[in-house]
Amino acid sequence: MHIVLLSGGSGKRLWPLSNDIRSKQFIKIFKKENGEYESMVQRVYRQIRRADPEASVTIATSKTQVSAIHNQLGEDVGISVEPCRRDTFPAIVLACAWLRDVKGVPEDEAVVVCPVDPYVEDDYFRALVELQKAAQRGNANLSLMGIEPSYPSEKYGYIIPADKGQISSVKAFKEKPDAKTAGEYIAQGALWNGGIFAFRLGYVLEKGRERMNFTDYDDLYSRYGSMEKISFDYAVAEQEPSLQVMRFGGQWKDMGTWNTLTEAMEEPCIGDAVLGEGCENVHVVNELDVPVLCMGLKDVVVSVSSEGVLVSDKEKSSYIKPYVDRLDQQVMFADKSWGSFRVLDIEDESMTIKIILNPGHRMNYHSHDRRDEVWTVISGQGRTIVDGMEQPVRAGDVITMQAGCRHTIIADTELKVIEVQLGKEISVHDKHKYELEQ
Amino acid sequence: MHIVLLSGGSGKRLWPLSNDIRSKQFIKIFKKENGEYESMVQRVYRQIRRADPEASVTIATSKTQVSAIHNQLGEDVGISVEPCRRDTFPAIVLACAWLRDVKGVPEDEAVVVCPVDPYVEDDYFRALVELQKAAQRGNANLSLMGIEPSYPSEKYGYIIPADKGQISSVKAFKEKPDAKTAGEYIAQGALWNGGIFAFRLGYVLEKGRERMNFTDYDDLYSRYGSMEKISFDYAVAEQEPSLQVMRFGGQWKDMGTWNTLTEAMEEPCIGDAVLGEGCENVHVVNELDVPVLCMGLKDVVVSVSSEGVLVSDKEKSSYIKPYVDRLDQQVMFADKSWGSFRVLDIEDESMTIKIILNPGHRMNYHSHDRRDEVWTVISGQGRTIVDGMEQPVRAGDVITMQAGCRHTIIADTELKVIEVQLGKEISVHDKHKYELEQ
Repeated sequence: MHIVLLSGGSGKRLWPLSNDIRSKQFIKIFKKENGEYESMVQRVYRQIRRADPEASVTIATSKTQVSAIHNQLGEDVGISVEPCRRDTFPAIVLACAWLRDVKGVPEDEAVVVCPVDPYVEDDYFRALVELQKAAQRGNANLSLMGIEPSYPSEKYGYIIPADKGQISSVKAFKEKPDAKTAGEYIAQGALWNGGIFAFRLGYVLEKGRERMNFTDYDDLYSRYGSMEKISFDYAVAEQEPSLQVMRFGGQWKDMGTWNTLTEAMEEPCIGDAVLGEGCENVHVVNELDVPVLCMGLKDVVVSVSSEGVLVSDKEKSSYIKPYVDRLDQQVMFADKSWGSFRVLDIEDESMTIKIILNPGHRMNYHSHDRRDEVWTVISGQGRTIVDGMEQPVRAGDVITMQAGCRHTIIADTELKVIEVQLGKEISVHDKHKYELEQ
Repeated sequence: MHIVLLSGGSGKRLWPLSNDIRSKQFIKIFKKENGEYESMVQRVYRQIRRADPEASVTIATSKTQVSAIHNQLGEDVGISVEPCRRDTFPAIVLACAWLRDVKGVPEDEAVVVCPVDPYVEDDYFRALVELQKAAQRGNANLSLMGIEPSYPSEKYGYIIPADKGQISSVKAFKEKPDAKTAGEYIAQGALWNGGIFAFRLGYVLEKGRERMNFTDYDDLYSRYGSMEKISFDYAVAEQEPSLQVMRFGGQWKDMGTWNTLTEAMEEPCIGDAVLGEGCENVHVVNELDVPVLCMGLKDVVVSVSSEGVLVSDKEKSSYIKPYVDRLDQQVMFADKSWGSFRVLDIEDESMTIKIILNPGHRMNYHSHDRRDEVWTVISGQGRTIVDGMEQPVRAGDVITMQAGCRHTIIADTELKVIEVQLGKEISVHDKHKYELEQ
């Protein structure tokens, strides 16, 4: 199976765990059988491999997520990088062009497209394998999966199938309705539209050429920013007469808000937390090293990270986005391809961060125009290269770098470093990258 | 007026703002007219000065609070240091011996004793001046102030006055009752016993000599640890036949719990906090530099510091102590006589802290046996002395110190330093102090 996972943008609705560069799908919040935690992306990737060990997985996403994806899934996963955000139709066409022109997938092979972040069990991915087979058989140009609704939701579009068969033709698409209308749709046998499609590669490439007039992947990639923002539903699904829908009756949850996310948590607390007297239906996700104590709370979610603290009634947690938008804060934590960093302290003319490099990884070789830096290695072993000169380093070593000096650090073991940045205008944009001559 | 303020122990009931070395009375939580915040100690000290500009103020407390007191009140305030905790009778006698033998106060002068942490208005301190005058007149050996109860509290002992006069003799003392009994006492005209006493200095010294058999301040101080733990109420007030009580009808709040403390806050939030949709009667005290967002909460207090996060129903906040006792955590923040420090990061073999030195102050000259240290100066100017050698330092300078090396840093302006400690057994007890030859 070729599967394309659409990995969306910043996850402000799960603030403070998600931020501008760490989306909700990368938060390690799901407990595995071995007791470790995994992210939504890791969980989905593992589930796909279990449903189809031969699956080729491609993630369609923006540049900002590439580091986190490699960090969490390794280097085997395919990534179709969107130069900018253009909605689902251009994103799916770009991923298809990447599959054909970069990966050499023939145009008559079927591809499944779905969001990266459903909270589902293995039956969902087995159903995707069936959907892909249905698309491969070619009875319809486009095959959708429709979710059997568990309540009259206002959050989803609806698909009205022609009959009650496992696979049926489609009578109509409906936009997100109000609850009453949703109830009427459901009475007619309607299914939720979860944005899950399957088709032969050539079909979508043809639709893409019609609307975007490109020759190949490189051409589309280079002109991607000028493409119209349009959804796949609108550009393709709702226009297509040769259409079928397969129904899916298993568990399917959208992890978009704290309310739904906490439902998926195995235990009430992740991290250092104590639920004291009188707590009912309280969930805590604490990423810091200090304890969270809750007393006498009901139906509340508490989340603590380097970015901030959320304390919310669970119902009300769906409405945090506009408040988070207004916070406009510094990114305090990020996963990178080489490891991670965390901001420890911010002053007017300094910033102190903690850097963790994964074994065998290194930062870019880079310099800054307007700040000096001091590294104190606190654990591990590795090497620094400063203005071309390589030196071994280990815990206790101190390296000072003036503005303008080129530098990197290479981890031989896991390496932890306290970095103090000093200057009047400290900014992530003050950075020049260089090739390392080795 | 001579006034002795009894400053109690660790304030676990206001965790995470208070910790083992920062008691509740030092938390800057009260907004002044100029918009700055002051602590309970600062507020009380200012109120006393306003009621009696000539007042001599002595704080009876343990060694651990001396730095914080000087830091918040300056060097003018008197401090009677208790070598260890022995309850209120020994503490008051020690403070009285200090007043006579160290400060030279004559034995026939009246002294007022009260807790350091009532949340009151200026009328309370004007009443204390009256209480002191009553004690000076000498109509009774011991003069108490009784608080007119606002509800049948189970938290206080009660004083039953002989009549309804402003000053009356005392009919009986009553231990903390249940609510029903409290109501009966109040019907009889009972007053709360707030631990507020006035007497001539010689009277308490005589009581102290009788029970503790000491000669002078130095003698009592040196044998303090062997003294019986006993309260002033039990040892003196309840035995004394020549007793009067003065009633006080103004505002008097005990700031012992988050519930009462938040009642005293001028605004719902201190620090970076947003109260979003549906919040009612919510208070936030946030000492960190990242935002707290609250949604849909009712009757909740949220407090965030380097020590941890408390989220509690206000009523239930009275019951946090046993939970906090069990946390048994590292002190993450402390005010010192020379400034303050904050723990930024803890690893197995390193700890990173931020140090702020007040202008003109310095650390002790000291060394460690089992850790190296690295200082990176992030702002300000000063001098370091390392193994006897003095050097000027300013922002950007890095100083490395091996285990065993003697060192200190002196602030000429306010000086901020990131200190990285490196070693296998990092402990606050690994410290030797030295005199500085200058």
